[in-house]
Amino acid sequence: MKKFLNDPQYFVDEMLEGLLLAHADQLKSVREDNRGLIRSDAPVPGKVAIVTGGGSGHLPLFLGYVGKGMLDGVAVGDVFASPSAQVMLDVTRAVNSGAGVLYLYGNYGGDVMNFDMAGELAELEGIRTETVVVTDDAASMPKGQEAQRRGVAGMFYLYKLAGAMAESGASLAEVKRIAEKANQHVRTMGVALSPCILPEVGRPTFAIGDDQMEIGMGIHGEPGIERGTLKTADEVADILVSTILADLPCEAGSEVSVLVNGLGATPLEELYIIYRKVHLLLAERGIRVYRRYIGEFATSMEMAGLSVSILRLDDELRELLDMPFATPFRVQN
Amino acid sequence: MKKFLNDPQYFVDEMLEGLLLAHADQLKSVREDNRGLIRSDAPVPGKVAIVTGGGSGHLPLFLGYVGKGMLDGVAVGDVFASPSAQVMLDVTRAVNSGAGVLYLYGNYGGDVMNFDMAGELAELEGIRTETVVVTDDAASMPKGQEAQRRGVAGMFYLYKLAGAMAESGASLAEVKRIAEKANQHVRTMGVALSPCILPEVGRPTFAIGDDQMEIGMGIHGEPGIERGTLKTADEVADILVSTILADLPCEAGSEVSVLVNGLGATPLEELYIIYRKVHLLLAERGIRVYRRYIGEFATSMEMAGLSVSILRLDDELRELLDMPFATPFRVQN
Repeated sequence: MKKFLNDPQYFVDEMLEGLLLAHADQLKSVREDNRGLIRSDAPVPGKVAIVTGGGSGHLPLFLGYVGKGMLDGVAVGDVFASPSAQVMLDVTRAVNSGAGVLYLYGNYGGDVMNFDMAGELAELEGIRTETVVVTDDAASMPKGQEAQRRGVAGMFYLYKLAGAMAESGASLAEVKRIAEKANQHVRTMGVALSPCILPEVGRPTFAIGDDQMEIGMGIHGEPGIERGTLKTADEVADILVSTILADLPCEAGSEVSVLVNGLGATPLEELYIIYRKVHLLLAERGIRVYRRYIGEFATSMEMAGLSVSILRLDDELRELLDMPFATPFRVQN
Repeated sequence: MKKFLNDPQYFVDEMLEGLLLAHADQLKSVREDNRGLIRSDAPVPGKVAIVTGGGSGHLPLFLGYVGKGMLDGVAVGDVFASPSAQVMLDVTRAVNSGAGVLYLYGNYGGDVMNFDMAGELAELEGIRTETVVVTDDAASMPKGQEAQRRGVAGMFYLYKLAGAMAESGASLAEVKRIAEKANQHVRTMGVALSPCILPEVGRPTFAIGDDQMEIGMGIHGEPGIERGTLKTADEVADILVSTILADLPCEAGSEVSVLVNGLGATPLEELYIIYRKVHLLLAERGIRVYRRYIGEFATSMEMAGLSVSILRLDDELRELLDMPFATPFRVQN
């Protein structure tokens, strides 16, 4: 296992310490163990708060999206493990300004169970909560079973759009409506070339042949829909785009936002080679890319691979997408 | 070779096409082959222009730093190969507004030869040019032979500081002075865990044992100063920081900026574990980190490894560091 590590059992603790030392002006901890982090200006008076959470190992997901125009707080779990309901509750209390809290996170069993429990406990304390579970991974379940799909890189768009809505002073119901709408408007398809290595385990999460790729693999190495020989970049782009568009029809003349997300080890050069073909394929169908994001947005440590997310825009979503945000990992003016 | 590629010989061309499709609002091409890119608003009237260049495979270096507050243009070479003098000259002509052009690039033989030739040709056309060659890699030559060192991730700081100076309307001599001063004030030390794979070659650039690391390795796989067994993250941080500070003394009470740069495959989590220790080691010496950058700033495709750069600040450099910039890859408000 070639990693920059000390004792693997302190991997998350030391990562969080580094993060808080680096971004003390933007983030603050609400717990001695640093597993709950919030915006440094939280609670923001009168604003609906948005809280996410999930396992570690996906930076900049999840905690990298805490900041103005995005999220208010995050519950941080161990590597690929859900944070506890208690951490979620602590974060909820710390960000609540009285306008309510939206739980916005990916569809994984442990996270759902714990956020539901945290929400019930918060309600007992008089804190209103609502929940939107992100289910953008088109590969994880067939059409018609969207609610059971996993949440992957498209989560970025839900944070961005709901975050912009909350920042504008909208009500909890309105912020929830935007998150649900964004979830309906976004689909992601990923492809993996190599596994990642969990620090505490020290070996690859799965095996894949030197000439193989897996389409539809999840960000924890969950099985995809097809394993086959390595295809060209253009063929990969074609499979991802056509699968997404079969699931999320976009008419000629429509506008979308595209996210090409690196899973960890894939060079930025290759993400641009993929973006090139995605852009051209959409252009052939008369679909315009209004705004694009290319880089690492939701990783699986050192996994080689990438995902493409497409967000279908309308006037409301376009306006929210254009609003600025500032997090430790990314700034949009 | 597990890469998202089409024909390897079009790797750079397709990457550039993707980049121009993605960032048409910020970048424009000055050549049919796209090997010369400039700011979309170049030439900026009255402003000293800064031009860089180098081989591909290091994104966001070099072309990712073209933008307001940073660079005006870039000459793009093949993977790990210098661009031609003709490309550099084309970029020079396209960014020149009459206030002169600073060539600012890393100390590699081909780049030096070609930029010198481009500068001579530009002078014949009446375009004033000056040159500052970046030599921040403390591992590449011993103290006393600083001018022969390679340029690596610390180049980011020269772009940032000289770019801010040029944006403020300073003269060519003043912009050059700041670039030289920044070069004297910054040192970088890298460590590699794995090689990268050149698309056209298809095999690793060097071999390294499963339990080994190489300290001081260059961003093209140039040999470092020590190959040994894998050390802990804290030990690595200690070696990098103490080597840098032996070369670049920073007194107690001084302020620095720190850049922890991922070489490609190393997870962001691990960069934060390294930053944590760097921060603590500096604090022990009474050195304050005024501003830090953590992420991928100068890569070697999918190489696993990282570098630490330390920039010693004074009032002038701090003020320039704080100025905003906006490039396709990073925004600072």
